[in-house]
Order: sequence, then structure tokens, then C-alpha cells
Amino acid sequence: MNDFQFQNTTKVYFGKDQLGHLHEEVLKHGKNVLVVYGGESIKKIGLYDRVMNELKEHDINVYELSGVEPNPRHTTVNKGAQICREYNISVILAAGGGSTIDASKAIAALTLTDTDDFWDLVEKKVSWKDALPVIAMPTIASTGSEMDKSCVIANVDKNVKSGINGDILRPKAAFLDPTNTFTVSSYQTACGGFDIMAHLFDMNYFVNSDKYPLQFNVVETLLKTIREQLPIALKEPDNYTARATLLWAASWALNSFCTSGYKTQAQLHALEQFSSTYDMTHGKGLAIITPKWMTYLLNKDETVANDFARFGMNVMGIKDLGNDMDNALAGIAALQNFIKVELHLPVTLSELNITDIDLDKLKVKACYGQDSLPMAYRPLTQEDCLNIYKMCL
Amino acid sequence: MNDFQFQNTTKVYFGKDQLGHLHEEVLKHGKNVLVVYGGESIKKIGLYDRVMNELKEHDINVYELSGVEPNPRHTTVNKGAQICREYNISVILAAGGGSTIDASKAIAALTLTDTDDFWDLVEKKVSWKDALPVIAMPTIASTGSEMDKSCVIANVDKNVKSGINGDILRPKAAFLDPTNTFTVSSYQTACGGFDIMAHLFDMNYFVNSDKYPLQFNVVETLLKTIREQLPIALKEPDNYTARATLLWAASWALNSFCTSGYKTQAQLHALEQFSSTYDMTHGKGLAIITPKWMTYLLNKDETVANDFARFGMNVMGIKDLGNDMDNALAGIAALQNFIKVELHLPVTLSELNITDIDLDKLKVKACYGQDSLPMAYRPLTQEDCLNIYKMCL
Repeated sequence: MNDFQFQNTTKVYFGKDQLGHLHEEVLKHGKNVLVVYGGESIKKIGLYDRVMNELKEHDINVYELSGVEPNPRHTTVNKGAQICREYNISVILAAGGGSTIDASKAIAALTLTDTDDFWDLVEKKVSWKDALPVIAMPTIASTGSEMDKSCVIANVDKNVKSGINGDILRPKAAFLDPTNTFTVSSYQTACGGFDIMAHLFDMNYFVNSDKYPLQFNVVETLLKTIREQLPIALKEPDNYTARATLLWAASWALNSFCTSGYKTQAQLHALEQFSSTYDMTHGKGLAIITPKWMTYLLNKDETVANDFARFGMNVMGIKDLGNDMDNALAGIAALQNFIKVELHLPVTLSELNITDIDLDKLKVKACYGQDSLPMAYRPLTQEDCLNIYKMCL
Repeated sequence: MNDFQFQNTTKVYFGKDQLGHLHEEVLKHGKNVLVVYGGESIKKIGLYDRVMNELKEHDINVYELSGVEPNPRHTTVNKGAQICREYNISVILAAGGGSTIDASKAIAALTLTDTDDFWDLVEKKVSWKDALPVIAMPTIASTGSEMDKSCVIANVDKNVKSGINGDILRPKAAFLDPTNTFTVSSYQTACGGFDIMAHLFDMNYFVNSDKYPLQFNVVETLLKTIREQLPIALKEPDNYTARATLLWAASWALNSFCTSGYKTQAQLHALEQFSSTYDMTHGKGLAIITPKWMTYLLNKDETVANDFARFGMNVMGIKDLGNDMDNALAGIAALQNFIKVELHLPVTLSELNITDIDLDKLKVKACYGQDSLPMAYRPLTQEDCLNIYKMCL
């Protein structure tokens, strides 16, 4: 096992009756809060009103930044930092999905620098080390940004997504209320759930190093648990246990516990360039690419068969067919079937009327860049990537 | 799922090459460190010298408190606090087992109060809320005190063990080096390993409430992983992976993640009064009592059969015999066999020449006290406790 350091300081308030603690967490940092959110959804579910009442009841000065995009833009981040400086904001409250929380982290860092442009931080033209405190209130089980230390921001001018990371960006507190996710659509629930699974595949489960018994077994258990609970949440959107399990699992998948000791490349996430290129939800892109990636690897390199066979039996619940190759094939088929029949997500790009692949448009160099190769589950060449993409058609 | 709050701020340095970070963690708090340890074992393994060199190289002023007992005494805690006050200690470094870390936490709290006697804190005669920072360096995989917020101290005059707890007592940093556990004897390794399992049984696995899919599945996985890795560590004391797995598992079992949402009574730990009454290692007492407790419950109340059957199949790895009762019986038998044949621990008190039980001597009222009953896996009367103890003979 590689040496590692682990610390996760986020204070989690989990459950349906925790909002009364919000003012305590805000007032630890000051009286001026910037509430960041996306569109109308937090108003529709009544969360906006409940948050505002709670804040105003305690004489907290509330400023707002709404309209954060699903792939949050650096121009929105810049706008947020401008508000923070103008109104001497002491803490940012992010209420929404991973995009809103990521944007808030970026605003938190940018505010305390000398530049007006977040991209200067991404390109390391301006150094940063401090950030305003962020409080996260996720409304979908997906990215786990609420306990994580990174953020991903889109630069539309440059047609690229990138970000920054650091322990100071971890939210100081996170309010995880499963009832806030009851109204998330089946489609977004499925995409969010598959994103959690892909985080686990990518950084902790399909690894090229030794498997560390504790971390590996826990990750496998998380995957199996999500595979079981996600269809329940889709059939019964207000099933508290299923929603709570997904929400807490999203945090676990990315809060650094599961990755402890591993040094891996997030290969599926590097391959998943469909969302930015064709403007689709990230989890949908991952759902299309994952079974194809597995099939391609299995054809190319039989040494993955044992891992995929174990995945088939322990995560997907297939019966032992007696040998690794058959079990691996059955495992991949079960995953594809799960995506199609239980999650109702597409398994090919053709279903979305995308019938041609232009590799130049898909920025996949992370997959075959020199830095990533030693950490890759299996190294992929540019040709491999193109072949995988073609299988997705 | 019950609402819950979760935060664990301990910074973990895990691995064999992390000691170089010790001075950074010490100097965050000041230049005067009290090194607390037990007997000669940290000197024998060279840890004492390595720690002292690291501290002195960075001009840190070192004070020492040695001789912490296996069941640490409140008089030792009092002595430690006296040293802290006299030499203006800024941080306590606990190098040893759970006893040493627990004693250090108690010293940390006592130092900042107005009394000289730790028992005043236990009996709430003197209130406390602050504590000196503690850095933990566990040398055995067992109590998980290194990420936990509580401590247990013995008062020999009153013949009772009790303690205090609070988030402020969580170690600020913990150095977990599996190689420091290589020389732990087979006997102590087995006792420590079983203690970890009992923590999981007690607070997270045998619960009277709904099972929360994520937490429950993870706890089951931890139990299975320990069941697999503990015998490896016994056969190959310097197997890094096995030792690392046990050390990290000990922290996981008690760092509040697994218990999130549960409100349970630690019934096995309440029943385990053998260690204080007959002066034996805590883990050994737990190993004797656990299978008897399961057998007694199964005879008394068949509703436990389903839980014990699942335990048998998923943790102990027995084959499905077709019905819960048979699987439960086979699961208990497998556990008893594991304790006897693989851990080489006793399964009865008679093996230790204890042939009579005096219930008055065993302070088990925690098992049938009114406060605990609503949280108990299954409520036990005084008579039940005596019956279980008699089965242990």
C-alpha cells in the first residue's frame, strides 16, 4: 500500500431536520452570505424560501447569485467574485447540484486573489492558496462535491473544462437532506447515480496496482449498494432510504477515504468528452462509454478478465459461469442491461442521433498523455480511444 | 434513517515513511511536547529513538510520561496533567496502544481545568470543554482511539472504568505506521483484532433499528475483511498488507462513519466485565462472551436468526444450509471455531481457571439499565446477563 495522508474536515448535517443549524454555521464566519444557485428548482421545492427564512430570522445579510449553468462558466465565477468583493461576503452558501457547489468553490478562491479572471488561476498565471468558506447544500446525489476538494469550470471561449483543487476548497459544512432530492427527475437521478458509480470504477475499483483489501472491498460494497438502491429511487422517488443511501454514497465515493493509498488515473472521466462536445449530461456520457470501454479492454488484454469477472459476480450479481472470461462477458452484459432497462439511459450515441465521431473535437489526450500512463488501469493509445468512441456509435 | 451529524477532523499520516511530518504537526501547537507511552515496547522497536531524534532535530522541548498502565489509571492521568501545567506543555504525543492514547486525551482535558483529579471530570463535579491538542501514534490495531473522541480510564480505588468524550478530544493528527505493529505478539494481535470486530458488532451490525443499506453493507464488509486478514497477520507478523488493513480498519470502525444515523447500545462491551474483574485483555473477554451471547439470544428470541444467518454467510463464509436457524447456528459455530483455531484465544473462562461467576462483582448494570434498553439490540434482564456469564464458564 502506498503511503498516504487523509483528512476530511467537512461537518456533515445529514437528514430532514437539520436546517435549523444553518445559521450557526454561517455565523461562524460572519454576517454576509452569498447564496449561489442555478435556476428555479430550489424555489419549486421550497428550499429557497426555507433557507431565506432561516438566514433572515438570524439577521444575516443575504446576497444572491443565481443562474449558475449546468456546466458552470468561468464568466459566472468571475461575476460571483465581484459580488463577494463588493459586498464583503464572509461565507458562500451553495444550494444546488455539483455545478453550483463547484462554481461556489471557484468563486471562494478567486475572491481572495488579485485577478478578476478565474482562468488565471486555472492556467497558474496567478497563484492562490486561500479561499472564502463554503457551505454546501446538494440537491442531487452525484458529484460528491460537498465533501470534495476540487471544482471543474468550463471556459466556453476556449472550449475546455478545467479547475483547481486544494484542501481549503472543501466545504466547511454540508447539509445533506435526502428530501431535497425527492423531486430530481428519473433521468437526472439515473445520470447522477451512474456518475457516482463511475467515480468508484475510475479511482478505486479498476486499479493497476495491488488491491488494498479494506479500501477495495468497501468500494465494491458501495458499487453493489448503489446498483441495488438506484432502481428503487427511480421507481419510488420519495423513498427516503434509497435517496439517503445515494446521497451519502455520493459523498463517500469522493471524500478521499476510498482512494486512500491509490494513485490512479480517472480514465473513464478522461474518456467522457461527450458531455462537453455534444452538450449532454455527464452521467449519460459515462453510461454510454463504460460498457464499451470494458468490452474493448477485454478484447485487447485478457488480463482484465479476472477483475471484470469479480465485478460481474460481486457488483452486478451474476451467477458464476465457471471461468473468468465468461463471467467478465456476463458482467459487462449485465451492466449494459442495467443501464438500458433499469436506468433507462442510452447505451449508444446513435440513440441520440450522433452518428459520426470526430476525434479532433474530443479532447481525450488525458487518456494517452505521458503523465497519466503509469497510473492508468490499462494504458490507451490515441487509436484505442478512437476505437472505443466508434464502439459507442 | 435517523438524522445525524458527522465530522472527523483528524489528519492521518498513513504508512512507513511519514515520521518526517511529525515536527510539522507538533510545531503547529508549540515547542513543548509531552511524550506519553507505556513500557519498554516502543524502545524495543526503535520507535522511541526515531521519535526523539525527529523532535530534537527540530529543537522541540521534550518531556516524558512513561509507565501508562494497560488499563490506564486516573492517578497516572493526574500525574500527566501536573507535568503539563508545570512545563507549559503545548501538545501531547501519545505513542502506544489505546491505553496510552486514552490516557493522553484525559491528560489533555484535565490540564485545562481547575482540578487536580481527573475523576472530578468523570463524575461531572468539574466541567470541562477544552483540551490540549493530542497527536496519536498507535502501535497496535485495536481501539481506534486515534480517530475517536472518547477515552476510558480506570479508577482502581473505586473499582470502576469510565471516561469522558467530546470532539475536542479527537487527536489533531495520527501517525499510522503498519511496521510499528509488526512485533505485536500473536496473542495481542488476536485480541486487538477481535476488539475491532466487537466494535462493529456492537454499534453498527447487530442493530434493533432498520439497517441502513450503505452503512450496514460497509460494516459487514469491514467484518469480512478483518476475518480474512487477521489470520494472515497472525501467520505472517510482518505482512505489510495485513497489518495495514487491520490498522486502518481499527480507525474506520470507530471514526463515526460506520455509526452514522444509528443509535445503539454497545451491549457486548457492556457485558464484557471480565477484563476489569479478572484482569484479562479486553479483546480476550470479548472473544469469550460474543459466541455465548449470540447462542443465548438465538435460544431466547428466534427473531435474531435472520441477522445471525446473514452474519454466518456474509462474514464467516458458511455455505447456505437453506434456512435461517441452521445458518445462524452454523455462523455462531464458525465464529467460535475462528476464535479457537485461527486466533488461538480461549472460548471459555474455565480455560483460564475461572470456574465460578459472582454477578455482584461484574458491574453489568449498563446492560439492563433503563437508559440503554431502547437502544439495545435485544433487551437483557439481570437474569439474562447471569445466564450468559454462566455459559462462559
